[in-house]
Amino acid sequence: MTINELIRRKDLRMSTENKPYTLKVFIEDTDASGFVYHANYLKYLERARAMLLYHKGISHAQLIQEKKLMFIVKSCEIEYKKPAYFEDDLNVYTDIEEIAGARVKLKQSIVRGTEHLVKANITLACVTVQGRPIRIPPFVETVLKK
Amino acid sequence: MTINELIRRKDLRMSTENKPYTLKVFIEDTDASGFVYHANYLKYLERARAMLLYHKGISHAQLIQEKKLMFIVKSCEIEYKKPAYFEDDLNVYTDIEEIAGARVKLKQSIVRGTEHLVKANITLACVTVQGRPIRIPPFVETVLKK
Amino acid sequence: MTINELIRRKDLRMSTENKPYTLKVFIEDTDASGFVYHANYLKYLERARAMLLYHKGISHAQLIQEKKLMFIVKSCEIEYKKPAYFEDDLNVYTDIEEIAGARVKLKQSIVRGTEHLVKANITLACVTVQGRPIRIPPFVETVLKK
Amino acid sequence: MTINELIRRKDLRMSTENKPYTLKVFIEDTDASGFVYHANYLKYLERARAMLLYHKGISHAQLIQEKKLMFIVKSCEIEYKKPAYFEDDLNVYTDIEEIAGARVKLKQSIVRGTEHLVKANITLACVTVQGRPIRIPPFVETVLKK
Repeated sequence: MTINELIRRKDLRMSTENKPYTLKVFIEDTDASGFVYHANYLKYLERARAMLLYHKGISHAQLIQEKKLMFIVKSCEIEYKKPAYFEDDLNVYTDIEEIAGARVKLKQSIVRGTEHLVKANITLACVTVQGRPIRIPPFVETVLKK
Repeated sequence: MTINELIRRKDLRMSTENKPYTLKVFIEDTDASGFVYHANYLKYLERARAMLLYHKGISHAQLIQEKKLMFIVKSCEIEYKKPAYFEDDLNVYTDIEEIAGARVKLKQSIVRGTEHLVKANITLACVTVQGRPIRIPPFVETVLKK
Repeated sequence: MTINELIRRKDLRMSTENKPYTLKVFIEDTDASGFVYHANYLKYLERARAMLLYHKGISHAQLIQEKKLMFIVKSCEIEYKKPAYFEDDLNVYTDIEEIAGARVKLKQSIVRGTEHLVKANITLACVTVQGRPIRIPPFVETVLKK
Repeated sequence: MTINELIRRKDLRMSTENKPYTLKVFIEDTDASGFVYHANYLKYLERARAMLLYHKGISHAQLIQEKKLMFIVKSCEIEYKKPAYFEDDLNVYTDIEEIAGARVKLKQSIVRGTEHLVKANITLACVTVQGRPIRIPPFVETVLKK
């Protein structure tokens, strides 16, 4: 392993305290270029956020049904550095940067081995099922800050 | 034009009384094989059914919101004869075969020029928004039979 | 557990010798009806087939790159018995029924707990990357029959 | 029509010299929230770019096959202001901001009537089919600048 690889690995390790979400690229995710279709990385990012919430004990489905509120994406800045291919094993890292009012800001990255493929800044908003912004409930905020 | 092409054209023309739904294949529809991803043809078929209903004056969105009922797919037999490619112009033909109770049976085909790419037999069911089968309302049945 | 449930469980167990592929339903898989969008079950079925192949030691990506051949879906008969919802945990069972020449016939089912949601008969064809049918290579046939 | 609506209409009209790409929202585009799934707006943006290129006389499929080069998304900043619903009629506006070397910068917006739903800044890169950045060919640059 070269020093550069070591540094990158260290960087990966330090870049998040949360366990990554791992996935394999299926043929459904690719397009005729042979790479993963660019919009599908947003699905990977959302799966990672859903599983993060889920592993912290919060079911988004239950939030919607019982509390009549949900998280929606308000903005997304995404940078595509390198493409992923069919059957690649990917890790998605998610760091919560800030929670304030109805908003959550996150940094996410999609990594193959030691290569950063995608970096994204995501802002979520907590809204009622009718779409009106609403303060994140304290029990959710507490869990997210853990 | 050869006689075979003429016959096929005639066959295409006679195969339906409804105007086809036309679409162009976008990169999102393809996969790493270079062809359209097999599940995406089901999207094309549904778009054609939605537009058929819409052009007959029925809004599926309104059915759901005002009548609390919707059409769902109960079964689908689909045969993939030839693949479609990025930027292909396709026609989707839809024939209503039978309407009975809560069910509608349709024959659909996806055609490029004179080539049949996909053939499908679809059974739809009319259900309440909770998912319970319900007889197709007379005003919808009348419109579908036109 | 009722006797019916026991029988169904037994039926599930006997219905396949292969380990099921398990997945969680993400919001990307659902549509405005609240259920999983009907075409997306075909993605679940293909993921299960891909992982079956993969766990038997065959990489579809490698087949394409090194042997210039791939499996494509020739036909699919799918029956939707009950809907799946956001965050459901699903099992996909896959049984290879027949291998002959360039074709593989499979039976697949998607199950939530003891409920069969979806049943499908799938025919795959082995083709060159140009799309021409080709006999399944003996090493793949041997592995599939294991 | 109020003055605000007039200003907004004027703003829409002035915001681009290119004809918008129009589309109808299908059920496949929505998710269990009832809104369009956030990643699918990126598909709408790409369809608009593909049709813009196409109407200017450039086939992306031909570029790939004959010139062995393609455009890929390098980065995307997207802001979700208001949601779109099943059966909405949407317009996608695309403005080319800058063309330099291998890069094209665009501003895109998705509009329903007079409401801006989505705004995006997109950077594309021209790459070889192997993924290496390459200067945009003069005949493409000329056409894009028209």
